Formats: sequence, C-alpha cells, structure tokens
Amino acid sequence: MVTVTLIGTSALLPLPDRALTAALLTANGRSVLFDCGEGTQSAARRAGVSLMKTDLVALTHYHGDHIFGLPGLIQTMNVLGRTEPLFITGPEGLIEELEPILKLAGRIGYEIRLIELPNEGLALAALNGNWPGGAKLTAFKTEHTVPSRGYCFTLERAGRFLPEKAEALGVPNTLWGLLQKGQSVRAAGRTVLPSEVLGAPRKGLKFVFTGDTRACESLAAACEGADLLISDATYGENDQALLASDHGHMNFAQAAAIAAKAGVKELWLAHYSQMIREPEDCLANAKELFANTVCGRDGMSAVLRFENG
Amino acid sequence: MVTVTLIGTSALLPLPDRALTAALLTANGRSVLFDCGEGTQSAARRAGVSLMKTDLVALTHYHGDHIFGLPGLIQTMNVLGRTEPLFITGPEGLIEELEPILKLAGRIGYEIRLIELPNEGLALAALNGNWPGGAKLTAFKTEHTVPSRGYCFTLERAGRFLPEKAEALGVPNTLWGLLQKGQSVRAAGRTVLPSEVLGAPRKGLKFVFTGDTRACESLAAACEGADLLISDATYGENDQALLASDHGHMNFAQAAAIAAKAGVKELWLAHYSQMIREPEDCLANAKELFANTVCGRDGMSAVLRFENG
Repeated sequence: MVTVTLIGTSALLPLPDRALTAALLTANGRSVLFDCGEGTQSAARRAGVSLMKTDLVALTHYHGDHIFGLPGLIQTMNVLGRTEPLFITGPEGLIEELEPILKLAGRIGYEIRLIELPNEGLALAALNGNWPGGAKLTAFKTEHTVPSRGYCFTLERAGRFLPEKAEALGVPNTLWGLLQKGQSVRAAGRTVLPSEVLGAPRKGLKFVFTGDTRACESLAAACEGADLLISDATYGENDQALLASDHGHMNFAQAAAIAAKAGVKELWLAHYSQMIREPEDCLANAKELFANTVCGRDGMSAVLRFENG
Repeated sequence: MVTVTLIGTSALLPLPDRALTAALLTANGRSVLFDCGEGTQSAARRAGVSLMKTDLVALTHYHGDHIFGLPGLIQTMNVLGRTEPLFITGPEGLIEELEPILKLAGRIGYEIRLIELPNEGLALAALNGNWPGGAKLTAFKTEHTVPSRGYCFTLERAGRFLPEKAEALGVPNTLWGLLQKGQSVRAAGRTVLPSEVLGAPRKGLKFVFTGDTRACESLAAACEGADLLISDATYGENDQALLASDHGHMNFAQAAAIAAKAGVKELWLAHYSQMIREPEDCLANAKELFANTVCGRDGMSAVLRFENG
C-alpha cells in the first residue's frame, strides 16, 4: 500500500488557496517528501499529514519555490526532537545549493545526508537498501531551465504463495508465513527459499512525480505503466504549448499526452501558474487526450493498492 | 491614519490556523512589515493585504520563525517587477545573518539596503527623512535570548489651524491650505511659517510591535501612551511567568502589566506557543491587569485615527 498526498499545487508563488507544489509519499513505514517550497510544512498540516517522519526530501531542482521551505522544516524537525538522519537528494549542485539553507537552519541535533544525483542512473542505493518490502525510489532526467530530475517510486509485489509447493518440500504450515514475507526457512533438513514456493512476481505499484519539466522522452519512459502520475501542468490552454516548452514546463494537454503515451492509470495535474484561477476550466484540454485526468487540489490524497490476484 | 494588520500570531512553528507572527503597518503611502517568517507572504494574502509595496522590513531578531520568509518575499517582489529599493533593518549582525538569505534569493532587479541598528538610539533617519507627514519609526532594545529590538511607529499631528492669526498676518485664504499642510508661504512681503498660524501640536498616533522579549523597563518606556501595542504573549498561564522570562518571552499577564503601566489604549496579544490551543481561554489572565486586551488573530486589522479636536 502506498499513500500519496498532494500538499500543494501552485507554481512560483504561494497563493492564499494554493500552497507551492509538493507531495508526500508513505509506504512500508518510510516517507519521501517531493520538493519543499515556502509553506510546505504548514500546508502539510492543513492536509492532515505530518512531515516529521520524512526519511528523504527528494528535490526536483533548486528554484526557490521548490526549496525555500527547507530551513523551516529542518528547524521544526529539530525542535520536535528528531534524532534520525534526514536524507536530501537532488540534481548536480546539491551541496552548493543547500549551503545557505543549512547555514540558515543553524545547529541541529540530527544528521543531514546530502545525496547528489549523478548525471545518469540511480543514486539512491543507500536509501533503497534500507527500504523494507522491495520499495525503490529512482530519479530520472527531466528538461527544465536548470538541472532537474523527476522521481519514480516503485513497490514490488512478490508472486502468489503456492501451498502445494511448500507441502511438497515438507515445510510445516507454521513456517509458511515467513516464506510469504520473503524469508528463507529451514525445513526437512535444508534451507527453503521463498522463490521455491512463490509464483511469478505480480504487478507492483508505481508513482511518478515529474517536478518542473517540459514534455520529453525520458519523462514518458519513466512514467510507463505508473498507477499515479503527478505532473507539471503550469499552463492551462492548448495554445500555450510553445510558451510552456520554452519555460521548461507543460500545459494540461502536454501532461495528458505523456500520461496517454505511457499508459498510466491516473494523472493529477499540479504546479498551476497563478494565471489559472480555476484549473477545472481547462480540464477538458487534458481529458481530450487522457480521460483519467484529475485537477490536483491541495490536500488531495490517494491510496494505491495492489491489484487483486 | 495608520492601518495595522496582524498577519500571523504563532510562535516558533507555523500552524494550520496560525501563521508566524508578523504585522504590516501602512501610513501616508508607506508600509513597514514587522518580521517575516515562513509563510508570511501567503498569510498576508489571506489577510487581504499585499506586501509588494513594503518599503521596509523591520526585523526584531534573527530566529528562523521571524526571517525564513524573506527569500521568498524578496523573490516574489522581483517576479512582480519591483524596482524600488527595499530597506531591511535589524539588530547587530544583520549583514551576516542576511547573507545566506540574500544568496538564496539570488539575482534580483532592485536594490536591498540593509540598515543595521546601532546598540543605542535610532538608525532609521535615512528612511524617516523620506516618510511623508511627520511619520517616524524608531527601534528600542528588548530582552530576548539573542540581540533583539522592538519598534515604535509614531505619526505626528500638527496643531489646529488658527484663521484669525493668518488673517492678522495678511495671508490671503487661498494660501491657507498650504500652511495647513506644513508649507511656508509668501504673503504681505514676507515668509509666513506654519508655526505662526498653527496651535500647539496635538496628540499624534503611536504603534508598538514588541517582537520577542521578556518584560523589561525599555519596553514599558517605549510603549508609553501607545494607541496600539502588539505584544509577545508566548505563554498563557500566570504560573508560566518565570518560564517565559527565562526564554526571553512574556505570558499574557506580563504583557498586560506592561500595557497597564505604559497607559496604552489597546493591547493585542500575539506570538502564541503551540501549547495555547485557544488564546481566549487565557484571556482573563490579561484582562485582570489590563481590561482593553484582545487576543490577536491572524488577519485582524485596525485603523488608528487622530482624536477629534
């Protein structure tokens, strides 16, 4: 089970009824916060989620509207007695970009571990190794006006437990539960591996957070088959496609086209320009290309569950 | 006329229903923002006031809950095309404390002028000289856990215009308006000064913003006769007086005692600890000592007007 909460939906400026775009993902007891603009911590409280147990802040890039909430978040965690390390990850330049933020946050009683993403490939092994239940966070390159990344979270799902195989191997049914949880057991004088009693891995869960980006190939590839996609949708109108692209953003239709191409299940639009008063007014522009599009709203939440079978 | 808007009332942490303590004062076309914590700019928008024309940000001290909103405010002003310089004033250490903030804010198209307050006395001459209508902002020392200041704003009021004196000096009544506005005029072959045709100066308007401070003599002196006082009231209970003082704060009763001693007209409590769920529950503790106490609420506004006569 993966829970995703959209904390804010605004671009550039925090508005009275729209906090800056950020999202919190929780799965198997671990949490990732995607971006942290000014006001993200209070918007999270309004949305009814706590950021205090965040394990990792995954930054998509270093524009102010995505990082100015960090000094306050870091201090609040300190005030509330955090002792666990906090990971912060982001594109090239992380150390330099975070320097004034860490200086502002001042002395704190827990460790902050900065993980600068390499130009290609994954860099979250340190974190992923500790994530229970086969969960994995990966970053992918996006195309904004500065170095940028999107993030893809996947939760694997083991194959179905096959009791007939366990019986055939002489495993008493008191040990079946351990095998189902992915642990090996000793039975009939040897070690029985989970893979011996489980069917083929089943479809897991996948979530993608684009950050700020224009429509691009790497994005479509990363979104392939996602259960939920939260996407840059800075502009609403179809005739703003070029404008959006020039500024390293998407309009509603471009976000929907990516969702359609990648075969995602559901698309949430976010990161609205303040020119967009009522996102619903432009929703048809997206639905024409991808029917299962929803206008993201501050505080909106989804629980992603494994399919039956 | 002076308009004061209380933008937030929280201490330390921004809460879902309470932004961090800050206030905006507007008089004669100029505006001063007192403190700027994370979320102050969006709380101001919720309160229905714009910070975009702020001339001066008056910082009481450099704890995060009073300054972490500055990078975002500075960038928003830039995005919206500000060209006027922005003054920022604060206690000793301003240049050093603002360095990471200005670094975060990045390149902007207007000037930021930092005015570090001296240990004693006033330092706002540069600004005050430009403030129309005899308005004056002064800082006074307060007692917090770090160097700190409170701010006192006064708007002078000239004496009543005395037509019989103007007539006796041979000033034609077409020139009376200029004299009333404080300008000298030429009449009957000589220069007539406003002071020759005005009565004694009348009672002006006075506003005080304490920032974070324990109850102290300099505070009581600065508040003398204020029309409105917005005060640190971090703790609600009477038995928290020592605790408050130890942390460089006041409880409701201590704030009320200052207001009573200084003979202010109205006291607004603010900067509530998150332990205070409903400030009204503790209001009696203040009213016992100063009847005209009000629990400050986010977005509360007051218009201070000259008395009749």
